[in-house]
Amino acid sequence: MPAPDLSKGVAFVRGQYVPIGEASIPITDWGFLRSDATYDVVTVWDGSFFRLDAHLERFMRSCQRWRLDPGLTPGQITGVLSQCVRLSGLRASYVEMICTRGQPPWGSRDPRLAVNQFYAFAVPYVWLANAQQREAGLHLMISDVQRIPATSVDPSAKNYHWNDLTMGLLGALDAGADSVVLVDSVGNVVEGPGFNVFCVSHGALVTPSEGMLEGVSRRTVIEMARALGLETQLRALPADELRGAEEVFISTSGGGVLPVSRVDKRPVGDGRPGPITQRLVQTYWAWHADPVYSQPIDYSL
Amino acid sequence: MPAPDLSKGVAFVRGQYVPIGEASIPITDWGFLRSDATYDVVTVWDGSFFRLDAHLERFMRSCQRWRLDPGLTPGQITGVLSQCVRLSGLRASYVEMICTRGQPPWGSRDPRLAVNQFYAFAVPYVWLANAQQREAGLHLMISDVQRIPATSVDPSAKNYHWNDLTMGLLGALDAGADSVVLVDSVGNVVEGPGFNVFCVSHGALVTPSEGMLEGVSRRTVIEMARALGLETQLRALPADELRGAEEVFISTSGGGVLPVSRVDKRPVGDGRPGPITQRLVQTYWAWHADPVYSQPIDYSL
Repeated sequence: MPAPDLSKGVAFVRGQYVPIGEASIPITDWGFLRSDATYDVVTVWDGSFFRLDAHLERFMRSCQRWRLDPGLTPGQITGVLSQCVRLSGLRASYVEMICTRGQPPWGSRDPRLAVNQFYAFAVPYVWLANAQQREAGLHLMISDVQRIPATSVDPSAKNYHWNDLTMGLLGALDAGADSVVLVDSVGNVVEGPGFNVFCVSHGALVTPSEGMLEGVSRRTVIEMARALGLETQLRALPADELRGAEEVFISTSGGGVLPVSRVDKRPVGDGRPGPITQRLVQTYWAWHADPVYSQPIDYSL
Repeated sequence: MPAPDLSKGVAFVRGQYVPIGEASIPITDWGFLRSDATYDVVTVWDGSFFRLDAHLERFMRSCQRWRLDPGLTPGQITGVLSQCVRLSGLRASYVEMICTRGQPPWGSRDPRLAVNQFYAFAVPYVWLANAQQREAGLHLMISDVQRIPATSVDPSAKNYHWNDLTMGLLGALDAGADSVVLVDSVGNVVEGPGFNVFCVSHGALVTPSEGMLEGVSRRTVIEMARALGLETQLRALPADELRGAEEVFISTSGGGVLPVSRVDKRPVGDGRPGPITQRLVQTYWAWHADPVYSQPIDYSL
């Protein structure tokens, strides 16, 4: 049997490092059967983690929010994530850490009796937009599916409750768009599958302030805007304001700042990525070279 | 190596029958990573499936709603479920069928390109209430966590979006209750983790009509009530009406009709399972002997 190709990805499962294609979770884990889990995703670019501390800090907060215990310190998690990347040899990687409920003793339905489980994996860097879309901009649809409200599931703690996002995405893909953004119960846009949304409206940068995940990439955009002297407004963003904005882009660990050139089939501005978006794209990648945000991985085995 | 103990359960995974303890799903399946899956649960009692047709019919409808294709006909699924039970030897079993999105080709985020996966397992019968609770009645708390609304996730198609139910359950367990029931945005009770809720109010049987799963056990209760000549109202059920009801019970595949003797720490009626609840419990088990609902399993291998 040939040695497995670790460059496709490496996972940490039940204390072992395995090729991603062999990584699994028990079918009886409540992380699957009740989506009782949390996660976070950090990227590796040019051999370095980007903003690892921010992702670890949020992961630990998410765990606490859902009363999950990964059983590892942030330092130990860093060790596991680094080892996944190291074994894969990937210089650009999408690295996910996961904590699941596990399973209570047989017959019990008490989540407090379950032994929580920690998983992780490193796979090749995931782009939410391909090269052509990054150049020309994405086509985004505004769905009438409402994002699960905070009164039901706290959006600030990461979770896999994506049915609304997936159903919205299917509708958008069917309509010929590239992705989707969901609204809240009063028609403000909130977030899309794996990204936050921004626009330039009357000269100011605007992003929703409620009902969405507080993405680390979103935070990076807000900090870059401050550094660049751009006025930023965190507030409700009505769907019609997004449709009429001068520029639109999304922020995500799956590619950073990605331009949107059409919303609901109509061009944004002149239909090409705008100047503010382009400055933020450049700054996003420039910050990857800054040791404040960037933590090199030792690839020697 | 001793032969595994199949009486703990048998699963159907990637075309193979395996002991439940060895059953897993790939960590990269969107069924886990995006809770992009559906399922249904049918029980086996005294060697026969109970209302298998109703569960299969709903499972196929749930698949269609989420645009999942199990790749098997209801007849083929019956064959797989029967084989899981047969191999386990269990005469009383909790049998789950699952369809997950699978995974789109690497790099794609288009759910339409994924190859959907079918899983199943049979484990020993699961009771939502232990023997003492079935005798004395459960203590239910009404949570202020709101069930995910239908505008976000269609509750009539089964799904694993249970974070709200799990967080509500944790709150109830901490407060010393046995389980929890969630409310909608205007304070009507809707459902609990794995069950529908009923009460007897001013002599009539009442159960919520919106915002909850249309359980097969709920349907059975409604049909039994009709057969017994009990007036039944499907309508909004305010939390205060449940608190003041003459009788309260839940319906679930995890035990049928289960009495509730306390709501929010206060006794229901005289604090003991009421006469209507008891008649429905008896009828529920009596119907298991009726060939209209009951389908015997051939255990010969």
